[in-house]
Amino acid sequence: MAIKVVKKTLVSFLLALLVFQYALADELITSQPAEVTVPARTIPPPVGVSPEMLEIVKNRRIPPTIPVPGSTEAWLELQAAFDAPGEAQGRFAAERNKVSFEVKDIAGVRTYFVTPEKLNDRWKDHVFVHTHGGAFVFGGGDSVLREAVWIANGLGVKVASVDYRRPPLHPFPAAVDDAVAVWLDVIEDQDPAGTVLFGTSAGGNIALATTLRLKQLGKPLPGAIFAGTPATDLEGTSDTWYTLEGLDPLGQRDGVIAGTFAIYAADADRSDPLLSPVNGDLAGFPPTILISGTRDLLLSDTVRMHRALRSAAVTADLHIYDGQSHGDYINGIITDLPESDDALRELNEFFEAHLNK
Amino acid sequence: MAIKVVKKTLVSFLLALLVFQYALADELITSQPAEVTVPARTIPPPVGVSPEMLEIVKNRRIPPTIPVPGSTEAWLELQAAFDAPGEAQGRFAAERNKVSFEVKDIAGVRTYFVTPEKLNDRWKDHVFVHTHGGAFVFGGGDSVLREAVWIANGLGVKVASVDYRRPPLHPFPAAVDDAVAVWLDVIEDQDPAGTVLFGTSAGGNIALATTLRLKQLGKPLPGAIFAGTPATDLEGTSDTWYTLEGLDPLGQRDGVIAGTFAIYAADADRSDPLLSPVNGDLAGFPPTILISGTRDLLLSDTVRMHRALRSAAVTADLHIYDGQSHGDYINGIITDLPESDDALRELNEFFEAHLNK
Repeated sequence: MAIKVVKKTLVSFLLALLVFQYALADELITSQPAEVTVPARTIPPPVGVSPEMLEIVKNRRIPPTIPVPGSTEAWLELQAAFDAPGEAQGRFAAERNKVSFEVKDIAGVRTYFVTPEKLNDRWKDHVFVHTHGGAFVFGGGDSVLREAVWIANGLGVKVASVDYRRPPLHPFPAAVDDAVAVWLDVIEDQDPAGTVLFGTSAGGNIALATTLRLKQLGKPLPGAIFAGTPATDLEGTSDTWYTLEGLDPLGQRDGVIAGTFAIYAADADRSDPLLSPVNGDLAGFPPTILISGTRDLLLSDTVRMHRALRSAAVTADLHIYDGQSHGDYINGIITDLPESDDALRELNEFFEAHLNK
Repeated sequence: MAIKVVKKTLVSFLLALLVFQYALADELITSQPAEVTVPARTIPPPVGVSPEMLEIVKNRRIPPTIPVPGSTEAWLELQAAFDAPGEAQGRFAAERNKVSFEVKDIAGVRTYFVTPEKLNDRWKDHVFVHTHGGAFVFGGGDSVLREAVWIANGLGVKVASVDYRRPPLHPFPAAVDDAVAVWLDVIEDQDPAGTVLFGTSAGGNIALATTLRLKQLGKPLPGAIFAGTPATDLEGTSDTWYTLEGLDPLGQRDGVIAGTFAIYAADADRSDPLLSPVNGDLAGFPPTILISGTRDLLLSDTVRMHRALRSAAVTADLHIYDGQSHGDYINGIITDLPESDDALRELNEFFEAHLNK
């Protein structure tokens, strides 16, 4: 019997060591629980990143959890506490990158118009539309400047950033409605097929949802979309929320983030594609570029969206940066970061290939 | 003081909760160790996969480790023990998919010529060249049929699969030399720009290394490359070898796999691009398609290669399947698997776009 056990262990090992695994082969069918238990581990810094990115990773801190606000007032307090440093960062990013901005009311929606010091000839007559991130609840006001500045300065293009209404006072679909309103206003003077709609994280969700909404309304779609590490499934919890927990300063979905999704969705069905774009009817969607990282809690949300787009025969390019956590590429606005420059190069190339002049 | 600590914790949390993190901002600079310790966790099955893939994941077993062979004889024993079930699987795959094969000596190299039941009109005059996986040491003989059958049947194309010489008797560069020899023979009757070179895992490494070697030799390059979850860095240990350990039946790099890399590299410098293609001079490389999964220990090796190719201005497409471990897509040869069909669709589309007729 002992020999048989050893032999079976060896065979299991060998089968698993094969380039691919026949999990359905008879020997491997077991009554294992569906969950996998992974023991505690110490993980060294990634080898596949630039020295600058390595410094960021080395100095990272996974934040402690904080209580989920239990009332509208408590959410508003957290929102204000969150937005204050975000707004300071937004203004700092604008100053550091010599980007100017003004705030206008567009179709009733507060909108930031952001202009880089130097316009790229290719984009001098374009305005790209931005929906900011921040878990649907945070990241408004001057905070929107962070990613808006990254794109405006990085590509040399004017950006209109939608400071959309947010929970707890304004749940879904307020944000999408606001983005649609600004979009329709912007394309009065712009070829929509020459216009990008873009955002990261919740902003990626809203960019995708806005495009789906425009499709529903029969309105002109963007010429291209950039969805940076987008939240694309607010109903199910995608795999990397679990598998990469502990490696991304975003923390975890349980707790405040789940709370933001709850107050954003409010009473709506979270399987609605305007909340979970991965479920959308993506036929005829514009060319879409997606970016994520191997330590990004939203890696699965990102690759699932990529596959959904590709299954609908949409031109969709995926770029994954080794060792990056959620939205790390945007750090280029405050520090020299080769990966950030590289992402801007990819975005520029993608837009050059797919946008009308 | 207590208030200050709470406030600092809150600020840290808020900064981290931002769509992106300013790890270099003053408040966050710490003297943290570079490693991250991740506690033990229980991870549910992925939500972003097909029902068929979910069954595979649920029935997965992470194999126990086995001792690293300590002598050439012990390696040969392990190799034989490993190849026996692999060869049975290869023959089974050929039969199940109605693919015929014959073995020929090409330029002194044992080569499998694999012919599908039905040729795709687009590929009827083409032969694609295959370098099999198996950690450089395993996967030879009839085992090569597994991936060769997947491509031959999946795309409707003839495949020439190189049964290259392997360690422990034949270390690097024997495998690359053999692949080069078969390649040069095949393109005597074929337009190289109409010919794909492809492989998964160690086979992806060898496909990339062979192309680099052809470049060095000034010989014609393939029209396109498929590198499935390739091992691209035999010197450094890419991040996902650590971060995803416990989720991929491949096991871990320490132990037998590190042993295979050691006997393959032998006395060569592992930073040599022919061993670690991620270090290669990739200018002028053919269009390359890469596939991996979010539970794949070689995800980082794959995305690093993708970035290296893109940085060299090479056309390179990346496809990441949620919840897949190393080489899972090939399971389509033994079971119905939508993700496998999807990968074949991507490969076919990529080759149609980039190969000469």
